[in-house]
Amino acid sequence: MKILGIDTSSNASSVAVIEDNKLICEYTVNTKTTHSQKLMPMIENMLSMSQVNIKDIDAIAICIGPGSFTGLRIGMATAKAIAHVNNLPIIGVNSLEILGGNMNLCDKKICSILDAQRNQVYTGRYKFEDGNIVEIQPVDVVEIENLLEEISNDNEEWILVGEAVYKYEDEIKEIKNIKVPAPSHNVTKASSLCSIAKEKYNKNIDVHNCYDINPMYIRKSQAEVQYEEKMKRLDNGK
Amino acid sequence: MKILGIDTSSNASSVAVIEDNKLICEYTVNTKTTHSQKLMPMIENMLSMSQVNIKDIDAIAICIGPGSFTGLRIGMATAKAIAHVNNLPIIGVNSLEILGGNMNLCDKKICSILDAQRNQVYTGRYKFEDGNIVEIQPVDVVEIENLLEEISNDNEEWILVGEAVYKYEDEIKEIKNIKVPAPSHNVTKASSLCSIAKEKYNKNIDVHNCYDINPMYIRKSQAEVQYEEKMKRLDNGK
Repeated sequence: MKILGIDTSSNASSVAVIEDNKLICEYTVNTKTTHSQKLMPMIENMLSMSQVNIKDIDAIAICIGPGSFTGLRIGMATAKAIAHVNNLPIIGVNSLEILGGNMNLCDKKICSILDAQRNQVYTGRYKFEDGNIVEIQPVDVVEIENLLEEISNDNEEWILVGEAVYKYEDEIKEIKNIKVPAPSHNVTKASSLCSIAKEKYNKNIDVHNCYDINPMYIRKSQAEVQYEEKMKRLDNGK
Repeated sequence: MKILGIDTSSNASSVAVIEDNKLICEYTVNTKTTHSQKLMPMIENMLSMSQVNIKDIDAIAICIGPGSFTGLRIGMATAKAIAHVNNLPIIGVNSLEILGGNMNLCDKKICSILDAQRNQVYTGRYKFEDGNIVEIQPVDVVEIENLLEEISNDNEEWILVGEAVYKYEDEIKEIKNIKVPAPSHNVTKASSLCSIAKEKYNKNIDVHNCYDINPMYIRKSQAEVQYEEKMKRLDNGK
């Protein structure tokens, strides 16, 4: 079974194909170029270089977020379009679990963090049990200060993984029970997405079709917040 | 500092760029198409997609082997050519350590294996200490049967990583203290190569120029063995 994975939840565009238990190909570009410019050319180049025909893909794995609103929509629209044309199931995996998946088979507890602006991070906590990733605290958006304080008061060692570790590098350095992974492991990677999606597919968890899968936004976009505030002001002015 | 990593030691061609502690891009194609067909187009497409100019690269990281003889020569020749033209240092990392690097920050002991034909594997053993990968047994070529017996008699848990786990899947399944990583982590990846090369460069270990770096072959190629046998026969026939 071949799974094509697509992740555009952060700065990085990442795409990959796994076949059963083997990685066939993976392409990750972690620059600020927009996903709309990068994503389709990356998929096309990767499939052609690997001699994989899009018609041979059996399922799509998509990162549902949380993360960049625009990024998520570009990835989701692309995944839905491919799934619609080829009548494929779509397996949704959240961005924090994908980052956790980068630390495959680690014994330490894993806390994934992605920047949510305004001194907040999207976060989720994971550990590996019998070779499988298990959620120990669900996805949330929290103040980075509170998160770091909570972890620093814990007795166990933690791995902090995700782009936001660069933004809060100075604060994280001070905390003795936190380790940050190598550059190779600190970006959402479509190979980790595919590995998790394969396990979910086998257990029939989070398997959707192109009509019933949706992004996980966690909180409202700045535009929505501002629109609601404006509407409130207008109502109050009545 | 930008490092371009190139790995062609196995079936997979893998290239990546890291800048300081961030992964900029990575491209891995794990199919049987020859490295000579894939390697340069992959580097060209990846650099262009990431808007990285080859002139901005500060060092080359190359997988020195052991692995496929032809693969190693293609990767090494490419690395030397780029280093020569741009007058760059080349950092050599062996293929088993790169596979170990895939298991970044794991607490378990790691044994990397790559197929060496004739029921033998290239192998090296590693663990992570203070966030850095440390060799606990140097690179060697051994009978797979002996290696598995030795590990199964050990009291600790081991991770067995590398392409050869697929070839010896049935034998490995029987051994209780061995875990095999997810598909995402079981291929030599240039991002892991770059992460290790960066640490080596900072400590000035295994930093070469295009004239003094050489592949690590471990044992003679089949062609050399046959040539020597033929010469012996001719000598004996005198």
